[in-house]
Amino acid sequence: MRVLITGANGFVGRQLVLRLLERSAIASRRISHLLLLDAQLEGFAHDSRLRLHKGSITDAALIRRVLADGIDLVFHLVSVPGGAAEQDYGLGYQVNLLASLELFDQLRQQARPPVLVYASSVAVYGAALPARMDESAPTYPQLSYGAHKLMVETALCDLARRGEVDGRALRLPGIVARPRQANGLRSAFMSDLLHAYARGQAYACPVAPEATAWWMSALCCVNNLIHAAELPAQHGTTERVWQLPVLRLSIAEILDALANRFGDAGRAQISFEPDAHLQSLFGAMPMLKAPRARAAGFCHDGNANALVRNALNLSAGSKTP
Amino acid sequence: MRVLITGANGFVGRQLVLRLLERSAIASRRISHLLLLDAQLEGFAHDSRLRLHKGSITDAALIRRVLADGIDLVFHLVSVPGGAAEQDYGLGYQVNLLASLELFDQLRQQARPPVLVYASSVAVYGAALPARMDESAPTYPQLSYGAHKLMVETALCDLARRGEVDGRALRLPGIVARPRQANGLRSAFMSDLLHAYARGQAYACPVAPEATAWWMSALCCVNNLIHAAELPAQHGTTERVWQLPVLRLSIAEILDALANRFGDAGRAQISFEPDAHLQSLFGAMPMLKAPRARAAGFCHDGNANALVRNALNLSAGSKTP
Repeated sequence: MRVLITGANGFVGRQLVLRLLERSAIASRRISHLLLLDAQLEGFAHDSRLRLHKGSITDAALIRRVLADGIDLVFHLVSVPGGAAEQDYGLGYQVNLLASLELFDQLRQQARPPVLVYASSVAVYGAALPARMDESAPTYPQLSYGAHKLMVETALCDLARRGEVDGRALRLPGIVARPRQANGLRSAFMSDLLHAYARGQAYACPVAPEATAWWMSALCCVNNLIHAAELPAQHGTTERVWQLPVLRLSIAEILDALANRFGDAGRAQISFEPDAHLQSLFGAMPMLKAPRARAAGFCHDGNANALVRNALNLSAGSKTP
Repeated sequence: MRVLITGANGFVGRQLVLRLLERSAIASRRISHLLLLDAQLEGFAHDSRLRLHKGSITDAALIRRVLADGIDLVFHLVSVPGGAAEQDYGLGYQVNLLASLELFDQLRQQARPPVLVYASSVAVYGAALPARMDESAPTYPQLSYGAHKLMVETALCDLARRGEVDGRALRLPGIVARPRQANGLRSAFMSDLLHAYARGQAYACPVAPEATAWWMSALCCVNNLIHAAELPAQHGTTERVWQLPVLRLSIAEILDALANRFGDAGRAQISFEPDAHLQSLFGAMPMLKAPRARAAGFCHDGNANALVRNALNLSAGSKTP
């Protein structure tokens, strides 16, 4: 089968590439070609299955070339992160919205409907979350990033209803532990805290110890993306959007797990300088029940200790003992 | 003030044009220019305030010319109807989705944020409506028309949140009584029934007498659109989408109102040939409470007799006694 990953050079994308090459099959079908699309594509080991397409997802002609020989499965991951898309609205509009629509429109014209796994986001819900939340929570995005994710979900569901793509959208929480770099991701502090503690470095945490966030490791995220691709063909179902189960943990609980792994000494290095806006966006996440996603086989990391282990073992830049 | 109407040649558009020219002001601001945009623009009486822009909403350069001298208020009405958009997906995609996004993107770049009134649709809800429905009902569009309306609502709310347009979206029910013509509107039977009875013509109704639909006259619809434009400036509110109050009436109740107006003889001319799919889409509408829209001053026609009167008095093609 021919598989395409957009945003293949990203944090999640690179780990998905490695995992797919290891597994060599999806739903018992051998991966013959793994097509990677991203603005940069560097450092991928040689593999006869890989096809590197370097360029912008906003280039419709490039998408056409990439899809020219047909495609069976697409992981559509590329996006401008929330903070960056809010600052540069036009960039987010072009990449997160218009390029996704163009990709989907080209996919729907394939001879056979491809499976389309879309990385959506919990940003679709917005800031005013109900205290006890489940998969039917209403959506009031408060960032253009979240609005565009929600629109693309709607497009995916419509094309799936028409039988033109076999779409599956996953609403992802913040994924950890990303490399420490300015990447326009407002939730970057979640990763930075993990890296700092693991390295024994000083870190000023921009949310309070009691702030609660939704957590998932890249390992767990990749497993969920692959699980989405392996679900049986979805015919005529209206439920194509899954809120993934998440670990809802306070910063204090994360620190306990870090102390379990790396010792208590690191605690002294962590100070707190809460930013009210950031805390309202990422530090006041309620309990979230996702029975429908669980029933479909989606998972979170299990517990805080497993999250720390999964998040840091897989992080390319980490220096865990 | 400079006012633009897209879809100005349509059933609702033409009546909105007439009403605005009569009123000559919106929210106490004089209408100096009324710009009309549509693929056809015929039969408009001369008026020094009118500017006719004949062409396709999908022509971004045309939109740019139309907006070149600035705009204060836009009624964005143009759309490919639900049935036609389902048949010709590409046309609906271009007109209902992409052209709306392009229009909004140009509007957000205006020096001053214009008021933007968008004609959305109850098609956003889809087919499986809750038995007791209110303004918070979930959306599962079952036509591409409804999916695209929902996506454009999301875009409008996002740009409004950013302060770039002052958007107000109204979810409209089927509007009656449209001229009898093949127009790709699946709910056309609602208008056809009214016209047929008023003219004493035979009519095979494609839904059963007990089928319940949501009704609104074009007169009432135009009043609601103008009311939306006249609401005070909406700053920072998240609630920009209103489900209009509707009259939920069975076909039998409509026939009673028609008999009140035109006599009982017409009843013998109406036969019933229910189409199960059509009935599931438009003939099984539940009670709908819209307290938020009512509190904001939006209205339905009042009762079945008023609906018949409003619908047929305003219909250009009607021959009421």
